[in-house]
Amino acid sequence: MRAAIFRNGEIVVDTLPEPKPAAGQVLVRTLACGICGSDLHARKHAHRMVELTKHFPGRTPMDLSRDVVFGHEFCCEVLDHGPGTARKLKPGTRVCSFPALLTPEGPRGIGYSNDNVGGYAERMLLSEALLLEVPNGLAPEHAALTEPLAVGVHAVAKANVRGDEVPLVIGCGPVGLAVIAALKLKGLHPIIAADYSPARRALATRLGADVVVDPAQAQALASWTEHAAMSAEQKAARPPLQAWLPALKPALIFECVGIPGTIQQVFEGAPRDARIVVVGVCMETDRSEPMLGILKELNVQYVLGYTPDEFAQSLRLIAEGKVDAASMVTAAVGIDGVAQAFADLANPERHTKILVEPWR
Amino acid sequence: MRAAIFRNGEIVVDTLPEPKPAAGQVLVRTLACGICGSDLHARKHAHRMVELTKHFPGRTPMDLSRDVVFGHEFCCEVLDHGPGTARKLKPGTRVCSFPALLTPEGPRGIGYSNDNVGGYAERMLLSEALLLEVPNGLAPEHAALTEPLAVGVHAVAKANVRGDEVPLVIGCGPVGLAVIAALKLKGLHPIIAADYSPARRALATRLGADVVVDPAQAQALASWTEHAAMSAEQKAARPPLQAWLPALKPALIFECVGIPGTIQQVFEGAPRDARIVVVGVCMETDRSEPMLGILKELNVQYVLGYTPDEFAQSLRLIAEGKVDAASMVTAAVGIDGVAQAFADLANPERHTKILVEPWR
Repeated sequence: MRAAIFRNGEIVVDTLPEPKPAAGQVLVRTLACGICGSDLHARKHAHRMVELTKHFPGRTPMDLSRDVVFGHEFCCEVLDHGPGTARKLKPGTRVCSFPALLTPEGPRGIGYSNDNVGGYAERMLLSEALLLEVPNGLAPEHAALTEPLAVGVHAVAKANVRGDEVPLVIGCGPVGLAVIAALKLKGLHPIIAADYSPARRALATRLGADVVVDPAQAQALASWTEHAAMSAEQKAARPPLQAWLPALKPALIFECVGIPGTIQQVFEGAPRDARIVVVGVCMETDRSEPMLGILKELNVQYVLGYTPDEFAQSLRLIAEGKVDAASMVTAAVGIDGVAQAFADLANPERHTKILVEPWR
Repeated sequence: MRAAIFRNGEIVVDTLPEPKPAAGQVLVRTLACGICGSDLHARKHAHRMVELTKHFPGRTPMDLSRDVVFGHEFCCEVLDHGPGTARKLKPGTRVCSFPALLTPEGPRGIGYSNDNVGGYAERMLLSEALLLEVPNGLAPEHAALTEPLAVGVHAVAKANVRGDEVPLVIGCGPVGLAVIAALKLKGLHPIIAADYSPARRALATRLGADVVVDPAQAQALASWTEHAAMSAEQKAARPPLQAWLPALKPALIFECVGIPGTIQQVFEGAPRDARIVVVGVCMETDRSEPMLGILKELNVQYVLGYTPDEFAQSLRLIAEGKVDAASMVTAAVGIDGVAQAFADLANPERHTKILVEPWR
């Protein structure tokens, strides 16, 4: 079968052996698979990714001298069942899956593995136990957005929203947009979102942002302050020693950029007691001033991924039309277009999410 | 009056004008005042402290060309009342106070200010509204430990303890010891504490640590792991996709060292989902790898100070004999001994807390 392969630091097209389902596994045809920012990171910082694995005993790092097929945001069609499967979902059924294979040694990731081919290939293997049938005749190109939406749903869940916060989302790539969608579902308002790109700001509005900010025009946290003033009652209810502090509602800041320096910028601009959720994936070493965190008593919650429940919930949200995730899709390519798509995604004004459709 | 003064980067002894209580203020005689690690930091990094103030509009930075008298861990005796005071506490009454003066412009700190003399002076001014009478005939050298204990009480309060965590305290200086005492009051066990100094480890045990670790012999987080195994029932109750993770109880790590690199070390050793409370005050820029935080979904809560309630609670805990805070006092000096005491505190084996008794 054909696949777009990560080989020697580049994305190349080649053929791979046909995958054969082992016990508990299902062979599927890949219908659509989103290109994730993490894939772009992984291509650029693969050695770093391998190096970080040393901190996680039991995890197998990628062997960069061997092929890897990326792609963990997929919607597929069942082709065939391996031994020891219940075969509840017939061939032709459209499915999504948490991107892991259940093995006797524990779950193994799909997409950053030498062994488990990801969604940039014509066919792949999934664990029957993790399959979710795509409901409501939902199109594969919409169902493939389950995974990125789940990232936002999880980030907002980890934020332990109380209801009185004013959220700020910094960076409106797919991750920031998913966070905005999840915040809207929580009923938090106003949602403030910042991005340099007008196209991304328009998408932020579409997905639920009430206020969008161009950081070239105004500091994101300064704009946040304008929209976070306490009510007169809240102001009056504060204890005397706090009455001299700025009368602002609690800040809940989502860092969805993931480049060095962003966390320090947030530390500098954040108000006292702000909670910061780091969703952007920064692979490089970063510098920050802990004293700013200390003097402001900041809280930083790093997040990654999602639970199987959050993944299933995200598929339902899209199928029920509660989140217009498809609006972030800006192009679809075949296997031959993956390398160019990686390059094109550098332009946030032109592209947000590109889908790989290996059957094209 | 005589005072130990921070002048041109050094601690010198000189005389200062006699303080005169303004409206709402009380003149007090300083009976005992602890030397805080922050004072040592402030002497070394005063310019940095001033620089950081730029991030806090409304705060007045120290003018380092003028005198500052440190000392914010004090117990005093009422001498005289200023105008507009209720005079409820008679001269001779022993008092503690949250280290701030209430002014028409808001609270102003005592101890890092050109205007408000701290406890390394014979006399000082306090706000009548913030005075707490020292109960139970408690000795001033014990009451002076209210402030450092409050730091630990606050750090543990900010940790939102649920009850199933296994705590690890890294660094057993006064801050770490106060955290241990506060954790013991919460009933969390086992409390694991790490410090290179045998004397500090002995104090940790005295204040409530169940297990002490010498990081020269064993990594603190490796020792923590040995004491944090889940029970068989907890293990069995985990969802299937988590069953392959190490079966450890939730980690609650208090960073009480405050030098660059410690947070990164904690990031490297921490288990998944660990909560880290940063109590140690690191004044320098620090480096860390956000990816470790992300991959482990760590939470970092930076803390500073305490609320007036926590301060009052800490005084009661000492007066009722619930915390043996006095055990951390290793020496007492007069005003002439402050400069030497700053040098002596560099040796953790000899000293933990030195009290300044300006009447000596």
